[in-house]
Amino acid sequence: MANAPTRAILIAGGAGFIGSHLAERLLNDDCRVIIADNFVTGSRQNLEHLASNPNLTVVEANVREPLRLDKALADSVLAEIYNLASPASPKHYQKDPIDTLLTNVLGAHNLLELAAKHGADYFQASTSEVYGDPAVHPQTETYWGNVNPIGIRSCYDEGKRAAETLCFDHARKRGAKVRVGRIFNTYGPRMARDDGRVVSNFIVQALAGTPLTIYGDGKQSRSFQYIDDLVAGILAVMRQGDMGPFNLGNPDEFTMRELADKVLAMTGSKSQIVTEPLPQDDPTRRCPDISKARALGWEPKVALEEGLQKTIEYFRGLV
Amino acid sequence: MANAPTRAILIAGGAGFIGSHLAERLLNDDCRVIIADNFVTGSRQNLEHLASNPNLTVVEANVREPLRLDKALADSVLAEIYNLASPASPKHYQKDPIDTLLTNVLGAHNLLELAAKHGADYFQASTSEVYGDPAVHPQTETYWGNVNPIGIRSCYDEGKRAAETLCFDHARKRGAKVRVGRIFNTYGPRMARDDGRVVSNFIVQALAGTPLTIYGDGKQSRSFQYIDDLVAGILAVMRQGDMGPFNLGNPDEFTMRELADKVLAMTGSKSQIVTEPLPQDDPTRRCPDISKARALGWEPKVALEEGLQKTIEYFRGLV
Repeated sequence: MANAPTRAILIAGGAGFIGSHLAERLLNDDCRVIIADNFVTGSRQNLEHLASNPNLTVVEANVREPLRLDKALADSVLAEIYNLASPASPKHYQKDPIDTLLTNVLGAHNLLELAAKHGADYFQASTSEVYGDPAVHPQTETYWGNVNPIGIRSCYDEGKRAAETLCFDHARKRGAKVRVGRIFNTYGPRMARDDGRVVSNFIVQALAGTPLTIYGDGKQSRSFQYIDDLVAGILAVMRQGDMGPFNLGNPDEFTMRELADKVLAMTGSKSQIVTEPLPQDDPTRRCPDISKARALGWEPKVALEEGLQKTIEYFRGLV
Repeated sequence: MANAPTRAILIAGGAGFIGSHLAERLLNDDCRVIIADNFVTGSRQNLEHLASNPNLTVVEANVREPLRLDKALADSVLAEIYNLASPASPKHYQKDPIDTLLTNVLGAHNLLELAAKHGADYFQASTSEVYGDPAVHPQTETYWGNVNPIGIRSCYDEGKRAAETLCFDHARKRGAKVRVGRIFNTYGPRMARDDGRVVSNFIVQALAGTPLTIYGDGKQSRSFQYIDDLVAGILAVMRQGDMGPFNLGNPDEFTMRELADKVLAMTGSKSQIVTEPLPQDDPTRRCPDISKARALGWEPKVALEEGLQKTIEYFRGLV
């Protein structure tokens, strides 16, 4: 009896923070994984511990162009595509905003075309940023959002919104097998230390003994999701039949000030806290309603202290 | 003394309803005009009365790809680009929603690149649809809108929002000379009779003696701007220094029912009025605050009856 062809899984943006964790999890599950990344914000360092795995293939590619995977696929069948290809922190996505928008729009389109060609399931990494500076709390997936279309964050927000549009139109018009997850603030090992996000900023600053920077009055809240919870959520969304969108986040809210205090206490740092003005269009509050994802049997399990502990250990190892 | 090179003006989507009126106006002003159109919703018939004008060049092209204008430009200098290239009625833009979104995003990007190459001023035809189903009335340009990112109208709404994003990022990052006009409901001669918009629908139905179709209860209001007013508004926005966005519309509001009654009275039609369910995400009310454009010295001048009369005459000529 001939062997069934191997199923392969493509992770676009697989060298990034989330992508590398998703790859690790899928490799641990004995899947064959192809990572496509242009290494602009993703890094080869994120993949070092996976490099010796024979089930992993890494392709340098830009999703703004159609991918050529024939060689990487060899005899396997492309069964799933995860589109995580975009810079994701304001600092990085604002560096080349035109590229950010086009990467999100063309990346989604090209990967949806690839999914159609191979009959693959497609996961779109969307974002809580589609809600902008939300006027309702917590945010449910039916909320249409409050996004400034012409502000300095809009390259990402509008790019991700347009990518969702493409997903649903590919599903409605071409029968694409799409799942959309709206990812809220996520943290953990392998966050880029320079990407300007609050958890990595605070930890890096605390460990270095430099002041922790709070923007605005520090009362703006965020929910923080540990990366392992997110990866479980992505797989839960992908491996069921509803397109979504599904919020994927941890609904426990903390203010920036609370987070700073926690990081200082857990690192034993003597750093001061300093304040700077709030950047333009920075949302004052954001918190997911995750009823819909919960109904799939998923929920976040890692408490903030536990996740922070692991993340602090990671950054200690780098210092 | 050598002659100064001729200034040329590119109208992308120039064979459409708005584009053909803008071309006519610019040709009457003795400008050299290049129309680029793929003739998917634009028509050669719209340009028939201009075809003999030696100042007009028509190029068949799709703005999803970079335009090649060397031959059309000859010795002239590209001074202005008007981007009107998109299907614009729900019926047309929903036919191929993926193409609609990509045309708006890539069209804006490619034409902004072209503007950069030639140092040309760039006008972006945006739309009241960026406000979606607005929660505030009338809409000012600072309102961020209420758009469903995954609904059946989102290919157009999100495509236009993302195009605005590109305009502002091209301006911020590359110094593009951009003007953005958000165009509200506009009517007049050369509307496509089959595009499903309410003014043309009602007139065509009234003249044919078939029932006038009202969607929902007919109490949803719209403001209707006559095409000549819009063309004057586009030029007023283009030929000053503020990027905008500027609302371009007529703030006089009428309900669908009032419009139907007016068309029946003015055509002397004996057509009945029938109702059908409201389409998904159809906005219940939309009306521009035009203070910003008024400050440029522009305002709509054509009353609804006067504009309807001209439009009815046009459609009578076609019957």
